[in-house]
Amino acid sequence: MPKVTFEPYQVTADAYPYETILELAMRLGIHINASCGGLGACGKCKVILEKGEVQGEKVDGIYYKACTTVPLTDVVIRIPVESKYDRKALLRKDRVLAKAIERKESFPLYSPLNWASLSLKPPSLEDNMPDLSRVLLALKPFVGDNFKVELEFLRKLPHVLRAQAFRATFFWYEDPFTGYKLLFDLDKPEISPLGVAIDLGTTTLQLELVDLSTGEVLAQTSDYNPQISFGEDVISRIEFCKKKDGLKLLSERVKEKIHVLTEELLKQAGRSLSEVKLFSLAGNTVMTHLFLELEPRYLREHPYVPVAQFYPPLLAKEIGFSPYSAVFQFSPSVASYVGGDITAGVLASLIAAEEDLTLFIDLGTNGEIVVGNRDFLMCAACSAGPAFEGGGIKHGMRATSGAIEGVHIDPETFEPMILTIGKQRPKGICGSGIISLLAQLFKVGLIDRSGKFRRDIAHPRLRKGDEGYEYVLVFKEESALEHDIVFTEADIDNLMRAKGAMFAGYQILLESAGLSIFDLKRVFLAGTFGSYIDLEDAITIGLLPDLPRDRFFFLGNTSLQGAKKALLSKEKLLELNRIAQMMTHVELSGHPQYMDYYMAALFLPHTNEELFPSVKKS
Amino acid sequence: MPKVTFEPYQVTADAYPYETILELAMRLGIHINASCGGLGACGKCKVILEKGEVQGEKVDGIYYKACTTVPLTDVVIRIPVESKYDRKALLRKDRVLAKAIERKESFPLYSPLNWASLSLKPPSLEDNMPDLSRVLLALKPFVGDNFKVELEFLRKLPHVLRAQAFRATFFWYEDPFTGYKLLFDLDKPEISPLGVAIDLGTTTLQLELVDLSTGEVLAQTSDYNPQISFGEDVISRIEFCKKKDGLKLLSERVKEKIHVLTEELLKQAGRSLSEVKLFSLAGNTVMTHLFLELEPRYLREHPYVPVAQFYPPLLAKEIGFSPYSAVFQFSPSVASYVGGDITAGVLASLIAAEEDLTLFIDLGTNGEIVVGNRDFLMCAACSAGPAFEGGGIKHGMRATSGAIEGVHIDPETFEPMILTIGKQRPKGICGSGIISLLAQLFKVGLIDRSGKFRRDIAHPRLRKGDEGYEYVLVFKEESALEHDIVFTEADIDNLMRAKGAMFAGYQILLESAGLSIFDLKRVFLAGTFGSYIDLEDAITIGLLPDLPRDRFFFLGNTSLQGAKKALLSKEKLLELNRIAQMMTHVELSGHPQYMDYYMAALFLPHTNEELFPSVKKS
Repeated sequence: MPKVTFEPYQVTADAYPYETILELAMRLGIHINASCGGLGACGKCKVILEKGEVQGEKVDGIYYKACTTVPLTDVVIRIPVESKYDRKALLRKDRVLAKAIERKESFPLYSPLNWASLSLKPPSLEDNMPDLSRVLLALKPFVGDNFKVELEFLRKLPHVLRAQAFRATFFWYEDPFTGYKLLFDLDKPEISPLGVAIDLGTTTLQLELVDLSTGEVLAQTSDYNPQISFGEDVISRIEFCKKKDGLKLLSERVKEKIHVLTEELLKQAGRSLSEVKLFSLAGNTVMTHLFLELEPRYLREHPYVPVAQFYPPLLAKEIGFSPYSAVFQFSPSVASYVGGDITAGVLASLIAAEEDLTLFIDLGTNGEIVVGNRDFLMCAACSAGPAFEGGGIKHGMRATSGAIEGVHIDPETFEPMILTIGKQRPKGICGSGIISLLAQLFKVGLIDRSGKFRRDIAHPRLRKGDEGYEYVLVFKEESALEHDIVFTEADIDNLMRAKGAMFAGYQILLESAGLSIFDLKRVFLAGTFGSYIDLEDAITIGLLPDLPRDRFFFLGNTSLQGAKKALLSKEKLLELNRIAQMMTHVELSGHPQYMDYYMAALFLPHTNEELFPSVKKS
Repeated sequence: MPKVTFEPYQVTADAYPYETILELAMRLGIHINASCGGLGACGKCKVILEKGEVQGEKVDGIYYKACTTVPLTDVVIRIPVESKYDRKALLRKDRVLAKAIERKESFPLYSPLNWASLSLKPPSLEDNMPDLSRVLLALKPFVGDNFKVELEFLRKLPHVLRAQAFRATFFWYEDPFTGYKLLFDLDKPEISPLGVAIDLGTTTLQLELVDLSTGEVLAQTSDYNPQISFGEDVISRIEFCKKKDGLKLLSERVKEKIHVLTEELLKQAGRSLSEVKLFSLAGNTVMTHLFLELEPRYLREHPYVPVAQFYPPLLAKEIGFSPYSAVFQFSPSVASYVGGDITAGVLASLIAAEEDLTLFIDLGTNGEIVVGNRDFLMCAACSAGPAFEGGGIKHGMRATSGAIEGVHIDPETFEPMILTIGKQRPKGICGSGIISLLAQLFKVGLIDRSGKFRRDIAHPRLRKGDEGYEYVLVFKEESALEHDIVFTEADIDNLMRAKGAMFAGYQILLESAGLSIFDLKRVFLAGTFGSYIDLEDAITIGLLPDLPRDRFFFLGNTSLQGAKKALLSKEKLLELNRIAQMMTHVELSGHPQYMDYYMAALFLPHTNEELFPSVKKS
């Protein structure tokens, strides 16, 4: 990896392969003006190559555009500066991400989906017992007495047996709670059944195809949840269900998509649909209700009652997945807004198996949090809203191409440095960009602790717009849109409420257990969002607690990981359900102290600065 | 009841209300020429009123037609005779029917369909557990832990609970083998659930609507099995299933009919479809396979293997009975040709609960027999074919309007006396008529012991037709058809084979248990056919064993009775299944001595006359 030294800051670091000078500077916290997102269009990010070789576009004879220039050897790069300043002041802390870890554990593969390959003696006049009796006699050592035979199994039975000379593989699903077994399919003598783990999110669907014999992941895919067309968030989808056949429609759409994605997985892996015998789905309570066509309206009407917390395993055909002869199992919920994605997440994160007190945060369309260890688990849903996914933010957007994901503001010039996803002209700001922007505005002093813009600072980017004061992050000329991209005081208000709700949530949960923020040994960030958050920025605004940075871990899609464990192990499925039973749900809005904590959290980083020692210090 | 004295025989008997002189004479075994079936058309049955008053048609001044004349007071009737004769020879034994009994037993009503009406506490913010958890908590004392919740139940749950202020009746089906419970429906707080017992016969369907709380039968109905259009017997229906979608079509037709008949029952009783929660079906193995859309072809292909003997209980919607939220349970089979109608019949007849050695005969489209008592049960299917339902007989027909059901032949003149169902012009001969006709031909000496017509007797009714020798039972002029109604030697051959197969079956079963015909304490006749058989005639031809006539009992539709018991009692359902397990099936065609017994039975009444002492004597 080539080393890059930035002058005049005398900061040296290794560049990643293909990393541009601009990206490296953003990562290191070095400011370079850049307003086109990394596309090379604005030409503002000019730097001087003092030593070494680069690949990039030369402009005005001596400059390179930082946004499109990649070092080929060790290089020295000088950033031209327009004024004198305290070098130190310009340097922000390195961008710090939570350490990505995979919480691996080994467990015996013993899927709730069982199978046995048998060679039966063909019938004769002396031994002409019914086909089913013949099969059950042979299966008795495996299946025992507590079972049921599916009608479809009986319908296939005589044909498959005779087509395969009475050799076949038999499949049954064992409900790990009751031990009751459902004998539902038979197939070729040699077959290695497949499972599909599904994370059914409000916004995205992620699937993995898994070999049930080996546990190996054979293929992965993801896509948007097609229900988005009928409402971005869970509330609007619940509303949509009040229309005639609305619920059915939402259910069908997501099932169709799961079918399409499963076919995609099978194509990737070169396997066939008939080999899929088990689906394991984890989704939040609303998503699971919609999937199963269970009435969702009482989830959001006082007193917020789900139809069910534990969902029975079902045959694919029972829910209209007729091409599959497979079973669907579901990750259990805890409450209306703490769903199967969280219980699966707790399973995957091993919190409930370890001693370390851990805060588990899933910051997606909503914010769910869990606090606990092997002795106790408490959880809550924070009404954070979708601000961290760009929702409710004037120019907020989801983390897709053209979204501003990284922001730095020059503390002297107040000029921004931005990076967009896919290095496209900026279209809006996504979650990680929003957090950084708020943190930066606070750090450079453009907003005060209450989140208000400083009216006394005159700057072309700070202005009074139609909706009050705002900061212009991208002027029209540089944006992909027909207008400026701005960040308003109303946006800041929304963010303050969202992060305040989260922080108050941590406090209530911890306090309910007689603990404080500083007792936390670990903070686990789940969901894709967690991988992009700049820890420093997130702590600066008070969204994350101010703990040593090495206590933060990014776990990835724990919902999917948990669903996969339940796919592969009866024990893990049982554990998943024990977790759901063990988790104490705290209804924050009903908690007597919640409002106080919440109000106190509506400052940057917090009313009580003692809670944020590192922010106070800086 | 008016007394009727027949002269010159000096026989006196009470007439039933509306009974004609001809019917009474037939009942008493007194011959009156009559060839139009009782319609009054042939005018041959002229009798003289010597004393008393009658209502009837006078002909030729002094005569009355016996077939349309009913006594109003005690009367003396003289039958004109054309020749001198031994009075005694003319008198046959009284027509003796098996005594009809209902095998009643009392048992506690504890249907596998269970229900509980509950008043639940409505949810509040302090108590906002999911609807399902609330219900399961309340149901726990009833349902325990080994259960599953149906998806449709979950879909209805929030709506029904809220529409009824959290008061509802919950329904579950308990599989009595595993104790596993399926919670599948909820309904109004006050509801008295209904069950439907179904006898699904090859030819007819019989249904009863039963109150599951009281056991009371609220309505009854019956109709033909609509599958008849696709084949009269099970063999032709199995053949039909080889056509594309043939099996599906047969299944759908009979299910539609069951639905229509159930609606008819509900209308009769003034009840509604949603109250029906359980169906209990008993049918032979082929009928049950067709109903469930299970491949039937291997039932008739060597080595005669059913798909299943025990059929799982199913939700109505699983088999396309979507209007019902109900469970279907099925009477288990024993073998390909000993089905759920027979096991239900054994349950209903109490054979397996009593000490008396009993022969149970169900002579329908095929002949199934059971021998045993509470210590053992053996069964077999006799390949009797449908001869006793008129099948394979040149002018045979089912027991419908116009069928000759009673026959007597004058031993001197060989002139027949016939009675038809509905007193219509004769269209053909049904089972009971066929048995009597064969017995009469044998008794008057028109056929010999091997079933051949006596070539040495010259009589206009005895002739050589296209298919060999035949007896003209009805000449064209008196028949409802454009031809004579005859009884051929080929018909007799068919009957001999059929009755021979039955008798050989009794012998094999009994001998397998080290017993003989004369050890039988009782003979139970099941099915509608049993109620019409003239015991004397049936014994004369060797179809029934020659035992004291008071050992014969007609039990009616035991298949339906058994299905009803299983509807009302979990214990009876268990017993039904124990019976199926306990019954030893003897494959007659594979039995080493079967052929010998069968060949010996191809005589009238039998090669071994010692087996028929009363026939020998007469």
